[in-house]
Amino acid sequence: MVEFKTVRGMRDFLPEDAKMMRYVEAKTRRIAELYGYKEIITPIVETYELLSAKAGEEVKSRMFVFKDLGGRDVALRPEFTASVARLVATTLRNEPRPFRLFCLGSIYRYDEPQRGRYREFWQSNYELMGSDRPEADAEILILTDALLREAGLKSLSFKVGHVGVLREIMNQEKVEDRVQSAVMQLMDKKQYDDAFKEIEKARVSEECPAVLQDLVKFKGTSILEILDKIMERVKDYAKAVEAARNLREILELVAKCGCKIDMTVDAGFARGLEYYTGMIFEIYVPDLDIAIGGGGRYDRLIELFGGEPTPAVGVAHGIDRIMLAMQMQEAKLKTKKKRAIMVIPIKEELKAEALKVTQMLRDAGISVEAEVMGRKMTKALEDADRRKMGFAIIIGERELKEGAVVVKDLVKRKQETVKIERIVDIVKR
Amino acid sequence: MVEFKTVRGMRDFLPEDAKMMRYVEAKTRRIAELYGYKEIITPIVETYELLSAKAGEEVKSRMFVFKDLGGRDVALRPEFTASVARLVATTLRNEPRPFRLFCLGSIYRYDEPQRGRYREFWQSNYELMGSDRPEADAEILILTDALLREAGLKSLSFKVGHVGVLREIMNQEKVEDRVQSAVMQLMDKKQYDDAFKEIEKARVSEECPAVLQDLVKFKGTSILEILDKIMERVKDYAKAVEAARNLREILELVAKCGCKIDMTVDAGFARGLEYYTGMIFEIYVPDLDIAIGGGGRYDRLIELFGGEPTPAVGVAHGIDRIMLAMQMQEAKLKTKKKRAIMVIPIKEELKAEALKVTQMLRDAGISVEAEVMGRKMTKALEDADRRKMGFAIIIGERELKEGAVVVKDLVKRKQETVKIERIVDIVKR
Repeated sequence: MVEFKTVRGMRDFLPEDAKMMRYVEAKTRRIAELYGYKEIITPIVETYELLSAKAGEEVKSRMFVFKDLGGRDVALRPEFTASVARLVATTLRNEPRPFRLFCLGSIYRYDEPQRGRYREFWQSNYELMGSDRPEADAEILILTDALLREAGLKSLSFKVGHVGVLREIMNQEKVEDRVQSAVMQLMDKKQYDDAFKEIEKARVSEECPAVLQDLVKFKGTSILEILDKIMERVKDYAKAVEAARNLREILELVAKCGCKIDMTVDAGFARGLEYYTGMIFEIYVPDLDIAIGGGGRYDRLIELFGGEPTPAVGVAHGIDRIMLAMQMQEAKLKTKKKRAIMVIPIKEELKAEALKVTQMLRDAGISVEAEVMGRKMTKALEDADRRKMGFAIIIGERELKEGAVVVKDLVKRKQETVKIERIVDIVKR
Repeated sequence: MVEFKTVRGMRDFLPEDAKMMRYVEAKTRRIAELYGYKEIITPIVETYELLSAKAGEEVKSRMFVFKDLGGRDVALRPEFTASVARLVATTLRNEPRPFRLFCLGSIYRYDEPQRGRYREFWQSNYELMGSDRPEADAEILILTDALLREAGLKSLSFKVGHVGVLREIMNQEKVEDRVQSAVMQLMDKKQYDDAFKEIEKARVSEECPAVLQDLVKFKGTSILEILDKIMERVKDYAKAVEAARNLREILELVAKCGCKIDMTVDAGFARGLEYYTGMIFEIYVPDLDIAIGGGGRYDRLIELFGGEPTPAVGVAHGIDRIMLAMQMQEAKLKTKKKRAIMVIPIKEELKAEALKVTQMLRDAGISVEAEVMGRKMTKALEDADRRKMGFAIIIGERELKEGAVVVKDLVKRKQETVKIERIVDIVKR
């Protein structure tokens, strides 16, 4: 028989990994609660029409697309944003602004698998709808930092930019949208020379390519200095100056509220997705060359999906990559280690009594495994030892007559006869 | 613009529903912990080969099947069992027995949508591997009852049977497997007459259809009485008697450990899936004609997937249906109601200070929403009231100079000026 395998690019989480995944998931939910984001759950399968509506060509070409049995064109979501935009444009249309939405789940993209990149992967997603103000952008940056710190990451850096700077230069130069998108995508891939060629073809002023060529050099961690240089260099493009000033205001707010984010500003930074309109950012950790999260402002997207004009800013975090970074940075899961317990009847006839004690402990909130193999006590104890359990509770006839059992501490290698009503105290110690 | 919709049979969970879903999910995970089940996470997309290997024709015909971009035949999982069996037959092959696995997630079936039935739905799944003993079956029944009680369901009943009774009669009568499966499926759909016709065609003894016709009438809540009647009626089929005795032993164990399950034994009960070999059960609630969960013993499945022979018993619970039953039975979510808090600067220039106070509260574990709309205080307060928040914390210049803020209790309609370091105590009260 051929061995069954997972589909290429997809994988199983065994208990240790699943535990870590749920740990990070709990952190994302805790942050949502702390910052007032309400969770929504949207389907993994959506219409192709929706998912392709505003997705870039690249995302579209990597979607899992198929027909359902009713002949509908559907696909597995390659991101959350389209689903959230759908909800905001329909069911949540009349929800008073601002509102904050959180979602978490698996995402599907037919990418070439590599370290930290899978075809089924998990994201947490936070979107703040209705505010066009810098404090909203600041909140998204701060909560991202808080989440990653909560997950135990000590070393991380944010790369921050503002698509408005590049976009507004091109707008003033009357570069067509189509060309703008092409330029932004080339910039995103750091194919700067191709980007400049593209812009030169667009019959812009002589100044324009020169400005862009200078801008891509403006990056570094002296944030205010670099922002000043950007503003000075783009001073002939009034709205580009405004964009840089907006970014400055956002980053000042982050700094003022005491949030110390290790940050690089990059004037030539562009994110692949076309719908960004303002501040954009990505988060990196040492020794991993793919971002563990990213986001930005997208003020026109909800309209494009047929909703009311709704300024918005959001972020998606790659849960798999956060987990990888946690392993790389040896982040400890802060969970209580509980010592496992097994209840063993010394003979077959006592298994109902053993089950009764087991249930009593569970009713008291204690995790217990019942012996279900009908093994002799020594065999069962060997198993409990091998699995590094904390206690074995042995149900014997003689003790039971006195309303007692034997509690064996498998760590201290001691045992004592204990009245049934006292077991809880002993194992909770 | 056409309004975007969800795919037929799939749906969004808005915050209230998502909260309930996560509440039930937390309960399923708590039960897993209490009973020693380790969580695993398997992909939603699996090879068609795997998912179709042991699925019945009906499940196969309702799967979401497609080719991925690499031309592989893949499908969305219509259940967890195949994925779990794959893991047990491969990665977990050498895991010492017994082991207990838990999984939770969404499942996909192209069924006709109706109340409590969706094309994307959620299940929690518990599998106890390696034990063929009645205490293992009893554990699965008990934990199912515990989960549903934990979710707040007060009224539920278990329908219990044993495929061994019917199967062993047919085995002794040398009925081919193919015919046996057809009979079981007809029985599952309660098409008894068709089932009897099918069996008569199979050249069995005259006694055989008569026994089957009697068996389907043996059902009710007087469990032991019915089991005795079954054993008496099938006494010419030794292994069928054994099967009934096995069921009796399981149910006696459940009763002895103090678990009061409202239970109906049904000798004609068969579950659609072919892989069951022993005890089977389903759980129903009043006024809902579809089961909210079900499971049973399947001792040969792991072998069929290429693994070591591994007796196993398991259960799947329909999370969506549990949620529906909770609503029908007005189950209360036992969660702490927290009063929401909004921090409002009285003027634009104080927004950084407001953000600072916001962060301080979050650092103390308190959920806070920042005002991000740049509204005047009265507008922001109106919004806080409308959303039934508990407190507004107002950041004013005069108070700030004294290191204080105004805390407005929106429920008691009172306000006081409070030193910043005391806010936490006030809002936690």
